[in-house]
Amino acid sequence: MLNKALLSTFLLLTGLFSVAQSSADSLMFKKISDEIFMNGQAYSNLRFLCKKVGSRLSGSAGAAKAVEETARMLREAGADTVYLQPCMVPQWVRGAKEVGKATLTDGKTMPLNIVSLGNAVGTPVAGITAKVIEVKNFTELEKLGAEKVKGNIVFYNFRMDPRYINTFKAYGEAGVYRGQGPSKAAAMGAVGVIVRTLSPVLDDNPHTGATRYDEDKPKIPAVAISTNGAVELSNAIAAGKVKSIYFKTNCKMLPDVLSYNVVGEMRGSTAPDEIITVGGHLDSWDLAEGAHDDGTGCMQSIEIIRAFKSLGIKPKRTIRAVMFMNEENGLRGGTAYGDIAKKENKKFIMAMESDAGGFTPRGFGFTLHPSQKEKLMSWKPLFHQYGATEFNEGGGGADIGPLRALGTALIGLNPDSQRYMDLHHAKTDVFEAVSERELNLGAVVMAAMAYMVSEYGL
Amino acid sequence: MLNKALLSTFLLLTGLFSVAQSSADSLMFKKISDEIFMNGQAYSNLRFLCKKVGSRLSGSAGAAKAVEETARMLREAGADTVYLQPCMVPQWVRGAKEVGKATLTDGKTMPLNIVSLGNAVGTPVAGITAKVIEVKNFTELEKLGAEKVKGNIVFYNFRMDPRYINTFKAYGEAGVYRGQGPSKAAAMGAVGVIVRTLSPVLDDNPHTGATRYDEDKPKIPAVAISTNGAVELSNAIAAGKVKSIYFKTNCKMLPDVLSYNVVGEMRGSTAPDEIITVGGHLDSWDLAEGAHDDGTGCMQSIEIIRAFKSLGIKPKRTIRAVMFMNEENGLRGGTAYGDIAKKENKKFIMAMESDAGGFTPRGFGFTLHPSQKEKLMSWKPLFHQYGATEFNEGGGGADIGPLRALGTALIGLNPDSQRYMDLHHAKTDVFEAVSERELNLGAVVMAAMAYMVSEYGL
Repeated sequence: MLNKALLSTFLLLTGLFSVAQSSADSLMFKKISDEIFMNGQAYSNLRFLCKKVGSRLSGSAGAAKAVEETARMLREAGADTVYLQPCMVPQWVRGAKEVGKATLTDGKTMPLNIVSLGNAVGTPVAGITAKVIEVKNFTELEKLGAEKVKGNIVFYNFRMDPRYINTFKAYGEAGVYRGQGPSKAAAMGAVGVIVRTLSPVLDDNPHTGATRYDEDKPKIPAVAISTNGAVELSNAIAAGKVKSIYFKTNCKMLPDVLSYNVVGEMRGSTAPDEIITVGGHLDSWDLAEGAHDDGTGCMQSIEIIRAFKSLGIKPKRTIRAVMFMNEENGLRGGTAYGDIAKKENKKFIMAMESDAGGFTPRGFGFTLHPSQKEKLMSWKPLFHQYGATEFNEGGGGADIGPLRALGTALIGLNPDSQRYMDLHHAKTDVFEAVSERELNLGAVVMAAMAYMVSEYGL
Repeated sequence: MLNKALLSTFLLLTGLFSVAQSSADSLMFKKISDEIFMNGQAYSNLRFLCKKVGSRLSGSAGAAKAVEETARMLREAGADTVYLQPCMVPQWVRGAKEVGKATLTDGKTMPLNIVSLGNAVGTPVAGITAKVIEVKNFTELEKLGAEKVKGNIVFYNFRMDPRYINTFKAYGEAGVYRGQGPSKAAAMGAVGVIVRTLSPVLDDNPHTGATRYDEDKPKIPAVAISTNGAVELSNAIAAGKVKSIYFKTNCKMLPDVLSYNVVGEMRGSTAPDEIITVGGHLDSWDLAEGAHDDGTGCMQSIEIIRAFKSLGIKPKRTIRAVMFMNEENGLRGGTAYGDIAKKENKKFIMAMESDAGGFTPRGFGFTLHPSQKEKLMSWKPLFHQYGATEFNEGGGGADIGPLRALGTALIGLNPDSQRYMDLHHAKTDVFEAVSERELNLGAVVMAAMAYMVSEYGL
């Protein structure tokens, strides 16, 4: 445990941060924490968002309802101003449930537990039927060459590496098969793609998520198969039992439609034109309730406003809680926010996003100017007792990324990552998977960080 | 982030821990971690324990089966020796499901969602019916005085304080009402006790757990009511609507029966008579599967043996994985282990228990001689990347507590505490509430700690 006397001495010597100030801030952190644990609304708001609104993919009725409802929540939380920022969003629809099967050499069939990847094209009405080629990675695919790939379905059976302690590292490594796999296979003449679900656990839940077609390649249908399904299919292929694969998907991309970011502001008392953005993304995949991804980030952001208002905190700088639209399959909301920011005659000093699940916080990742680092690090001891002990370089969030061009310091909340990938983009990402206390603790450290930047700048 | 150069310099200067050694240990930690994440059996063993054995209160058929099955798991994990340590255990049985209701002044009844506290006596066959007196705490009870308490049922409506970040602090504070509440009320003439469930969340699951009668006071029936039930009952009392309370419990204490601790050993290669004990408790409350309490601690302890065996690690000192019996309502297993240890001509250098849930690890708590602290703290940086960043004084575990009399250093695994009290002693403590990766990560840091003590002593 940190020796308090030593800490004080250190702080005095560094001159970064007076002891009296630290003590007052520590007291404020405790007030914020007590308020959120005693009277927090993030959990009940999340229940509403998950159970009364539900899934809310960009352009869907759910997304439209989520815009309305979070605007209401922001007003109820006590925001001075609540407004919508328009943006055109893609409207991808899944259509009827996907069907897939493998026809085996003994004449039997093996059902495939699949879902279309987001943004993918659908199959022809008759579905597609072809031989399957399994590869573990792109290197194997390239070794096969176009001759062998042409006319077939490519099955990317890349297992997420369970050895990374931070599951986002494994996700990053495996995610390229979902993102780039279809176009890479199409470039070699494949007619369809099956990607092993991005999850470290073996179960029967295929996870969706966006794929990204290269515009100069044929767009071929692409599905994710559950991890259990991937193992089963791979075993059958290895045993020489698979004659052909059939699958049918019914998804399509409709024309862009109008949607919105939802913004709630608490105007700064002394520097209202210095903006602190806190947020999460409002859209979520259609398979589930979008609880951890990213209802929790939205509800935590609203909670910051509510807690400040309830405690009578008048932030020196303006706090904006933003529900970004379309993070999942277009980033149009984040892009629009950045574009509008460029035109506002304001200083966007810091933006913080919570989009890694509503799990117990472990710390923050930051992308900022080296001169800002010392100040941020001097605050670290204050966060210790709230579990946010890791202050790491690198991080922020997809939606706030465009603000970096304005020199905005970016901060990402880093919750514990062990459980996130189990349910990410799958039907298991539901309200029941969220712990009230973990959600609240994340809100506490976000609110505390917003408070510090509001008081002292960066 | 810790500056590596600075760290190395520090380590060289202190002379505690050479850089080369640190690097080799770091490599070993990675091997242990990779092995457990790639080939770990803790999760599948836990599934078996929860689903094929189930609840295993001391003296029950489940407990007997758990002894057999964990002995098998230890053999399969590769323990050199597996044996049972006999101990007599209490045999408390719940009997038929409890029934409770409040009779209201308008003639209606309100059902009470209750379960008997563990070790409690049952009601007479006709149940008990009496007026209810609600108190928030012992101070309120004492103020009322025996005159007002006599002949009534006391309802302790102490809310677990949600403001503690570590939920064990709130549990400690509220736990006295479950433990001492019945005897304190009985001393003032009460005929029964209702205790608000020890949980920070509002739901319909009453949590059981042991009460402790003073031998010189009348033993009166005592139940826990769900948190929602407590709020509802309290509101009805405040509105003057409650005429009387009735409840009937069917529990009783039977004569002690023979049971066992299960011990699996890996004999030390150079100092076999120096014993490192790692463990959890095998018994669990009858309402659930005892997943987090404490199947996870048992399975993690077995996993240490399995990982060492699989990696060909030959520990210098002897590692004993112990499944302690009867932690929940008697501590007879822990007591027996300590008593036997006193008679063994061996040195019990360290004991480590995992009994705070199978959640993501945050660190360790330790109770040891000040001279040992420096050495332990010098290892701390090695644990950082595995999330066990907090090394705090104080802690160990109930079962290993008796070893303290032998001078044994005690270490408790401290997982994140946010979710534990939600399901502790309730029907929701099931296999599905455990994350495979969180369980494994706990096993990794326990195995790493056992490795360090085995290599370097304490």
